[in-house]
Amino acid sequence: MSLDAIPVIAVPPGLRASDLSGNAPALLREIAEMLRRLVNIGESSAIDLQALPLTPADLDWLKQQLGHGEVAITLDSDGESTLNVTACPGLWWVTHCNSSGTVVSSFLEVAFVPEVVKAHPDDVEMGLEHLELLISDLS
Amino acid sequence: MSLDAIPVIAVPPGLRASDLSGNAPALLREIAEMLRRLVNIGESSAIDLQALPLTPADLDWLKQQLGHGEVAITLDSDGESTLNVTACPGLWWVTHCNSSGTVVSSFLEVAFVPEVVKAHPDDVEMGLEHLELLISDLS
Repeated sequence: MSLDAIPVIAVPPGLRASDLSGNAPALLREIAEMLRRLVNIGESSAIDLQALPLTPADLDWLKQQLGHGEVAITLDSDGESTLNVTACPGLWWVTHCNSSGTVVSSFLEVAFVPEVVKAHPDDVEMGLEHLELLISDLS
Repeated sequence: MSLDAIPVIAVPPGLRASDLSGNAPALLREIAEMLRRLVNIGESSAIDLQALPLTPADLDWLKQQLGHGEVAITLDSDGESTLNVTACPGLWWVTHCNSSGTVVSSFLEVAFVPEVVKAHPDDVEMGLEHLELLISDLS
């Protein structure tokens, strides 16, 4: 792992990176509420982890509490994004990197499946046109 | 790669593994039709590659024609499954392995997103109950 791959996290004032801020348990309650809305009304949502007053120790604690599930997704577009389901189905730990491998954003996404994984109908149509050209070239 | 990881493919009678059977181009036309149904009426479908009279050379040719896209998914449940989008959005090359790493099935799946990646609402609800227990233990 290069130094660039380590996300830059603004540690809340007065705390060291290794301190627990005490903010992470409240985040678990927020996540539970988001999962409840997903189950009850199908609403997807996300939390920007870099916008919250969390220390690296908080993030480690969160990752440990949430565990990991069976599905891991990588999306390679400019930089690499990883979307790993946690032990809570419907809750995904999402990290986006730029082309140098630097983590540029981290989210907790609540969704049956992350939106970015779905093929867009316009793109399917464009791919289909390309395939039809390929087929006509073969015959 | 162990020998077990190499899928066993029944080569059609009279052909060697390195021969093109001539069946793969017809399969491209079938795939185009499946993609058309996905775009037009949202219908998902799949082709079992091991049920078709295709040689390993046919499969290599198909893989080359279909190319690869940006999304790669692994699902780790007993054995590992990989679901890689092709250069045609909505068309996924899917391989399921058993716990020894042997390929047990290969499919071409046509879907906006493969069904197996989606969290099931019942599982989300069970995960949420588990998370709520965890939260009540913390407080």
